[in-house]
Amino acid sequence: MHQFIFYVPSNKITDDIAILEGDEFRHCIQVLRKKAGEEIALFNGQGDIYTARIGGLTKNSCECRITSRKKAERQMPADIILAVGLIKSKALNLIIREASALGVTQFVPLLTKHSVKQGFNSERMRKIAIESVKQSSNFYLPEICQPIELKNWLDSVASVPAKLVAEQENSMSIKSALNRYAGDKKVVLLIGPEGGLHSEEIESAVAKGFIPVNIHSNRLRTELAAIVAVTSIFAHFN
Amino acid sequence: MHQFIFYVPSNKITDDIAILEGDEFRHCIQVLRKKAGEEIALFNGQGDIYTARIGGLTKNSCECRITSRKKAERQMPADIILAVGLIKSKALNLIIREASALGVTQFVPLLTKHSVKQGFNSERMRKIAIESVKQSSNFYLPEICQPIELKNWLDSVASVPAKLVAEQENSMSIKSALNRYAGDKKVVLLIGPEGGLHSEEIESAVAKGFIPVNIHSNRLRTELAAIVAVTSIFAHFN
Repeated sequence: MHQFIFYVPSNKITDDIAILEGDEFRHCIQVLRKKAGEEIALFNGQGDIYTARIGGLTKNSCECRITSRKKAERQMPADIILAVGLIKSKALNLIIREASALGVTQFVPLLTKHSVKQGFNSERMRKIAIESVKQSSNFYLPEICQPIELKNWLDSVASVPAKLVAEQENSMSIKSALNRYAGDKKVVLLIGPEGGLHSEEIESAVAKGFIPVNIHSNRLRTELAAIVAVTSIFAHFN
Repeated sequence: MHQFIFYVPSNKITDDIAILEGDEFRHCIQVLRKKAGEEIALFNGQGDIYTARIGGLTKNSCECRITSRKKAERQMPADIILAVGLIKSKALNLIIREASALGVTQFVPLLTKHSVKQGFNSERMRKIAIESVKQSSNFYLPEICQPIELKNWLDSVASVPAKLVAEQENSMSIKSALNRYAGDKKVVLLIGPEGGLHSEEIESAVAKGFIPVNIHSNRLRTELAAIVAVTSIFAHFN
């Protein structure tokens, strides 16, 4: 692997030209002082890795000519959609960082009864995710969604068969729940914010086909519960 | 469960008297302003939970008379000894906190080639562990050892059959490795510091019977690797 690799979203790549912008541009050109003519590595967050030569430089971007490309195999044993009730920024940053390193497919911040009422800086969350996938040599960037009301989100995932909701009082393990969906490798996982989901919220999820599962016998903070649940799902399919 | 519960080590409990001291004393008496004659809950970190009545108060301690006791069942499916190369305090605090919530039995900070050279404040680590077991309703406090040289530690765990060492380049999963030890529910887990274990250190571990395992297909920071490995071991026995 290249020691330094820069992220370019797919919509900034056309034929053989990739446009490096924003933080990634600044890190490459201003911090690492790469010059026109030098070769660098790029990735698009969807598994494509490029070698490219730095070309035309402006103050805020540079045009890179792609000289070779390869596909990084996606190594995750399952696709996980992780939806978490909005919690304080520090804990949220940690979940996004860890979930990106672990290879979660999509992260959804949910507005629930006990959610922390605050803004969601998706640009900042995206930066944390980019940094984390780079560090972990995971070339698949999770999609980070805008906050959405729980009710609307439940409707949006209705068609996915394997859906789990964390409930401390429940005794069914993730393993047992997933055994009901043999062969189905897309899993939707719902975790409440600090203070948990309201019993009515759990009932709504169950009415939409979610299975309540116990993530761990001890009571875990939201950010730890998310990591443990994601790991347990991957472990099930491994 | 009691909303507030205070930690008293077993050596401060004789017959029906428990001596509350230090931070736990200050929290109980100075912060929560509990008075002589009031009933409180205590735990000894080994699964024993007591109801006790506050008695004689001094400036730094109080004598509590135990009125009832019960045993919290240990719910962990395995005993995990987690040994991690010494890393920066912030990451170390996080591992101790998470490992305590998850129910690890023993935590060992290791001196290895790439360990961060720094002091190890075991009193502070113990406080983090106490706070975390309380929050997670886990009444079993992990033993937190003093830092030890890798070589000496390898000798000390020689008699345990199931021993795993994390190695990114390896392809054996935790599940496959543990399948070699059917029924053996005590697992020793060795994880390097940032920068990993030196190849000679991995060789020494293997020579002592450790099996190298791949914790995750992506490269994880030490603190995340520890949580993921612990979760995968528990998931295996669940």
